[in-house]
Amino acid sequence: MTVIEAKEKLTALQAKLSAYGHASGILYYDGVTTAPKGTAANRAQALAVLSEESYKLTTGEETVALLEFLDEHKDELDATEQRIVFLMLKDIRQMQKIPMEEYIELQRLMVEASDVWHTAKETNDFPLFEPLLEKVFAFYKKIAGYCAPEKDPYDYWLGEFEDGLDKARCEEFFSTLRSRIVPLLQKVSAAKQLDDSCIHGSFPAALQDELSRYLMETIGIDMAHCGLGTTEHPFTTSLGSHYDVRITTKYQEDNFASSMYSVIHEGGHALYELGVDDSMAYTVLDGGVSMGIHESQSRFYENLLGRSLEFITLIFPKLQELFPEQLKDCTPEDIYRAVNRAEPSLIRTEADELTYCLHVMVRYELEKRIFAGELSVHDLPAEWNRLYKEYLGVDVPDDTRGVLQDSHWSGGNIGYFPSYALGSAYGAQLMRKMRETVDVDECLRSGNFEPINAWNRENIWKYGSLRKPMELLETALGEKFDPTVYTDYLEKKFSALYGF
Amino acid sequence: MTVIEAKEKLTALQAKLSAYGHASGILYYDGVTTAPKGTAANRAQALAVLSEESYKLTTGEETVALLEFLDEHKDELDATEQRIVFLMLKDIRQMQKIPMEEYIELQRLMVEASDVWHTAKETNDFPLFEPLLEKVFAFYKKIAGYCAPEKDPYDYWLGEFEDGLDKARCEEFFSTLRSRIVPLLQKVSAAKQLDDSCIHGSFPAALQDELSRYLMETIGIDMAHCGLGTTEHPFTTSLGSHYDVRITTKYQEDNFASSMYSVIHEGGHALYELGVDDSMAYTVLDGGVSMGIHESQSRFYENLLGRSLEFITLIFPKLQELFPEQLKDCTPEDIYRAVNRAEPSLIRTEADELTYCLHVMVRYELEKRIFAGELSVHDLPAEWNRLYKEYLGVDVPDDTRGVLQDSHWSGGNIGYFPSYALGSAYGAQLMRKMRETVDVDECLRSGNFEPINAWNRENIWKYGSLRKPMELLETALGEKFDPTVYTDYLEKKFSALYGF
Repeated sequence: MTVIEAKEKLTALQAKLSAYGHASGILYYDGVTTAPKGTAANRAQALAVLSEESYKLTTGEETVALLEFLDEHKDELDATEQRIVFLMLKDIRQMQKIPMEEYIELQRLMVEASDVWHTAKETNDFPLFEPLLEKVFAFYKKIAGYCAPEKDPYDYWLGEFEDGLDKARCEEFFSTLRSRIVPLLQKVSAAKQLDDSCIHGSFPAALQDELSRYLMETIGIDMAHCGLGTTEHPFTTSLGSHYDVRITTKYQEDNFASSMYSVIHEGGHALYELGVDDSMAYTVLDGGVSMGIHESQSRFYENLLGRSLEFITLIFPKLQELFPEQLKDCTPEDIYRAVNRAEPSLIRTEADELTYCLHVMVRYELEKRIFAGELSVHDLPAEWNRLYKEYLGVDVPDDTRGVLQDSHWSGGNIGYFPSYALGSAYGAQLMRKMRETVDVDECLRSGNFEPINAWNRENIWKYGSLRKPMELLETALGEKFDPTVYTDYLEKKFSALYGF
Repeated sequence: MTVIEAKEKLTALQAKLSAYGHASGILYYDGVTTAPKGTAANRAQALAVLSEESYKLTTGEETVALLEFLDEHKDELDATEQRIVFLMLKDIRQMQKIPMEEYIELQRLMVEASDVWHTAKETNDFPLFEPLLEKVFAFYKKIAGYCAPEKDPYDYWLGEFEDGLDKARCEEFFSTLRSRIVPLLQKVSAAKQLDDSCIHGSFPAALQDELSRYLMETIGIDMAHCGLGTTEHPFTTSLGSHYDVRITTKYQEDNFASSMYSVIHEGGHALYELGVDDSMAYTVLDGGVSMGIHESQSRFYENLLGRSLEFITLIFPKLQELFPEQLKDCTPEDIYRAVNRAEPSLIRTEADELTYCLHVMVRYELEKRIFAGELSVHDLPAEWNRLYKEYLGVDVPDDTRGVLQDSHWSGGNIGYFPSYALGSAYGAQLMRKMRETVDVDECLRSGNFEPINAWNRENIWKYGSLRKPMELLETALGEKFDPTVYTDYLEKKFSALYGF
């Protein structure tokens, strides 16, 4: 086999893997958006077969030989090809450590867990979900043991979502946030609360759906390649390549801001996926490089842009067109204050920008203790409620609004939550850098997102998974990551809003 | 290999094939319901890979050896296993005749043709679709040549959709219909036309959606295993097994009856699929046996039940609840007459029960001539319009409401249309037989569909593809198929409606 032949084989292999990923992806997407309730077991059958085939293809002798051959001829590969071979070999080395039956079993478990979680959340029934969640945590601990026996299992999973992340770095990062956010929140709580009555009322889902599509277009999403669905817990996924991206939302008819910010958040994820360079289509590089970088983009659009007065002013005429009666006595400033009202609350995805990271810290703490064997899944709801009281001062009335609120654990995304907080901090520093060359406020005033999107595309999106997350971030920033840029931003914004 | 081992392998093989079918099915379903417009090419990539894998699996040496082994040990198989082996070997023998590159090329072509047809229909642009349709017809002719070189190509495709059907049988069947329907339609046209103003007005899609779900429940569809989507041209599909069935519809906001009957029609298909015996799940027998039998069920629910006065009376309170203003001056009798108004028209799917078969005959005629080389795809629109004038007396104003109206050709369903007419006739005879033991009118009056569904389940649905279509039908009927039962029914119904 020549190197050229091997490269061709590599391209074909990736295309095939992307097809399996595409099929599994659409099965999942359909399952949580439009599929009838009783069809999960049937879907699990198909997913089990597809993941078995995909597993065989990824770890099969022929594939391993091909990648090892290319790895031996590294000097004849360009940087992109080297990265592809590196990432695929890394995955293989890991997958080889997981017995195939267990890998397939895990796929089945995740389908079932996701299905049961949906029901459990709907019916406030943690005991229904408990045995599955126990299995999920146990499985993830076991897999960490297979893949990195030398590592602490939770460190392993943190690093899976954010290359290089571990408990030590988390503790340091969260302690910086805590030292700045807690006193800031105390000042906010002492100040006169902002009025958010203008975002509450009656907002029919069909009109909110129109708003969603308007928002997607406004922030520059290519609607020919990005769809919108509704689901219990909004997420973004790309299918097969960056040519088909789907975002999802959930409409609350008594509050239009909830879905509005979910759409802008997922829209940020979508822009990142859609913006990967076309040369990476149908390769393993075709997608965001890490959850932290992904969240830096989603929270950039949601908060840094979406919750600014300039953005609210821009979209205000559309809001008035859709909801003329409901908003007849509102100004853009009213909405700006309403969507930035900071207040300890129950639901992470609806939390304000200031208290958001406290929600993340609760989850980090719980995952850490479960992995350390200090907390059982059975005791999770009580401990969740205790920490919400301690960190946020709120009483959790039921598990639906407590431990069952997030889809992450039922989807196997354990170790993911810290990425949300990291992403927020990354985003704030990226914004400071962007402002050196882009007049962001003017873009928002004129509704021209292209300069903003171009900066993100040039510095983040187009690279897909080509660069390591921290290398990508610090190259874009031209400096080291510094979470105090984020806390400075929060202090400035909220002291102005609350007038202290 | 023992026979028992071979049977186990056969079960595993079918499960795997059902997973590939499931994946392709959901990709297709998503593509025509919710996928963003620009994603067809991306989807085609995945479908090409999946169909290549499925093709290899179906026709691979190991599979062929397995099936031939089982075929040699036929006497050790039960009737179900024998039928499975027969059907799979039949398919293999056919697929082996199609070169793999062409098989894959065909999958790609169908995705593209379907996508372009959607655009062409929307923009009334036949020339856009023409080159693809030409390719589709040419491909189908070629495949018929590969699979059955001894047969006339159109006879081959007619027989593919309805075992045993050919042009000779079609001509005979259609000539019976023509001799009875044409004079009947003349009498109808001479009589005072029925008033259908009550089904016209303004009926918001969201409320029609509520009606759809009510109708599905009313006719006894298990909503936990059957979903509803919207698309350009409604269809029904099952995904992987009869445990996940999807129907689709299209809402016209100026006429609630259009989607209502499309939902009941597709609902009939869905009931058939959902009603296959559980023992056939994940086997090749898990689905309706032929298009004709399928249409006998869909048109049974749509017309024989759905367009009866008893059914309209049953659902009338719900109609009034959803559309109180629009229907405030209507009676069930008004709606009964409106949905049975017979009148030559442009669109097959909206045609009344009486003229419907004339629409089918136009398509049969055109397909037949294209296959015979007597008509080119380029001349299709003009000939379509000419035949509509000749058979139905209507002028076709544009191709959107003419030759581009149906999805069938873009989906490769050439030779399918006669099944609609056959199905209508099968259904009428099945109804006559059912009435010997089931008080159908009383079921409709009380809203209890179970005795009706039980009869269909016992006589048709549960068999899946176990029996040949004509054997299944004539066993259920206890007599030979006789299309005059259908024409008798039409005469009785329409002479009463029009009072002659």
